[in-house]
Amino acid sequence: MFFKKADITAMPTRYRANFINSLSGFKSANLIGTSNNRGQTNLSIVSSAFHIGAHPPLMGFIFRPDIAERHSLDNIRETSVFSVNQVSQTIYKQAHQTSARYPRDISEFDQVGLTPAYVEFSKAPYVLQAELSLLMRLREEIPLKINGTHMIIAEIEGVQLDENFIAVDGFVDIEAINTVAISGLDSYHSTQRLSREPYAKP
Amino acid sequence: MFFKKADITAMPTRYRANFINSLSGFKSANLIGTSNNRGQTNLSIVSSAFHIGAHPPLMGFIFRPDIAERHSLDNIRETSVFSVNQVSQTIYKQAHQTSARYPRDISEFDQVGLTPAYVEFSKAPYVLQAELSLLMRLREEIPLKINGTHMIIAEIEGVQLDENFIAVDGFVDIEAINTVAISGLDSYHSTQRLSREPYAKP
Repeated sequence: MFFKKADITAMPTRYRANFINSLSGFKSANLIGTSNNRGQTNLSIVSSAFHIGAHPPLMGFIFRPDIAERHSLDNIRETSVFSVNQVSQTIYKQAHQTSARYPRDISEFDQVGLTPAYVEFSKAPYVLQAELSLLMRLREEIPLKINGTHMIIAEIEGVQLDENFIAVDGFVDIEAINTVAISGLDSYHSTQRLSREPYAKP
Repeated sequence: MFFKKADITAMPTRYRANFINSLSGFKSANLIGTSNNRGQTNLSIVSSAFHIGAHPPLMGFIFRPDIAERHSLDNIRETSVFSVNQVSQTIYKQAHQTSARYPRDISEFDQVGLTPAYVEFSKAPYVLQAELSLLMRLREEIPLKINGTHMIIAEIEGVQLDENFIAVDGFVDIEAINTVAISGLDSYHSTQRLSREPYAKP
């Protein structure tokens, strides 16, 4: 079947959200850990994290200011730091629960039963139960006028990870630490490696 | 183990590329189909497609001007249109092969054995063998000065998909059409659904 622009526009809001969110393919599953300057913590699942570059090591995130992610975005603006914690099969239901609209002064860490932990150089709480955590520093915020979302570009300043999951060429086996993938708004998936492919030559 | 910023900076280039590319989590796998105004086609795998919003239906892409993707980016600038084709298990090896540095006047469609097809309203070739194809129109190009990459924001103007894979709530079952996920630079994965989670409430 072929859906034209008018067909998409005519879809009911929630139906269209489910539909369009499925079309980009599988998404990453990460928990964003933040705190404000008074130490009030916040934890929010995002499927919008994406790789921007390796040197400097940069990741991007799309934040919608009108939903739960708002508290995370405010904290990132206030402290310039946050953590990114890969969601594994062990914690994905708790991770999903952080998407509920808790009041600002309630910590999702407490509500969903995950433990905030800290490294010496950052105010940002990371998730003790995550197998892979990144400490990030805000580098740029780009408002996207086209739909009112905000893109955050941040630099990786620290990586917490068991070195047994790093291959000799630097590849990290995120399947071995049971990282999940997301499709649409709410579907969680485990993975099975098909292959690593060699560097392609004509 | 904890890697600090200095540890990351000290990594050899290729090792760091493998390492950092693994840290954002699973990525989407899509083939970008383009042509120039003379009808010369190009096909390029990207793992950088991400959802920006459902209304209007927008996706983003990070392009590195210094690699094979350059030809795709030039064609998108010339024609303002392109296709996005989800990579399935059936075609992922052919899809990966499009990352080789073919000369500009060579079509990766021919080289890897995929078939360009067209809809009436767009110059952009889509991949006949893909189960899910999107016809896109360029809306914005944002140069990211921080590392010299370019972000493309494009609107979905058409969706080619068997309607049997669309759930009653609009969710598209991309696992049922065998869409793959990518980790790092070169690892391809099939998926197994864990669950769809209900809308979270406090």
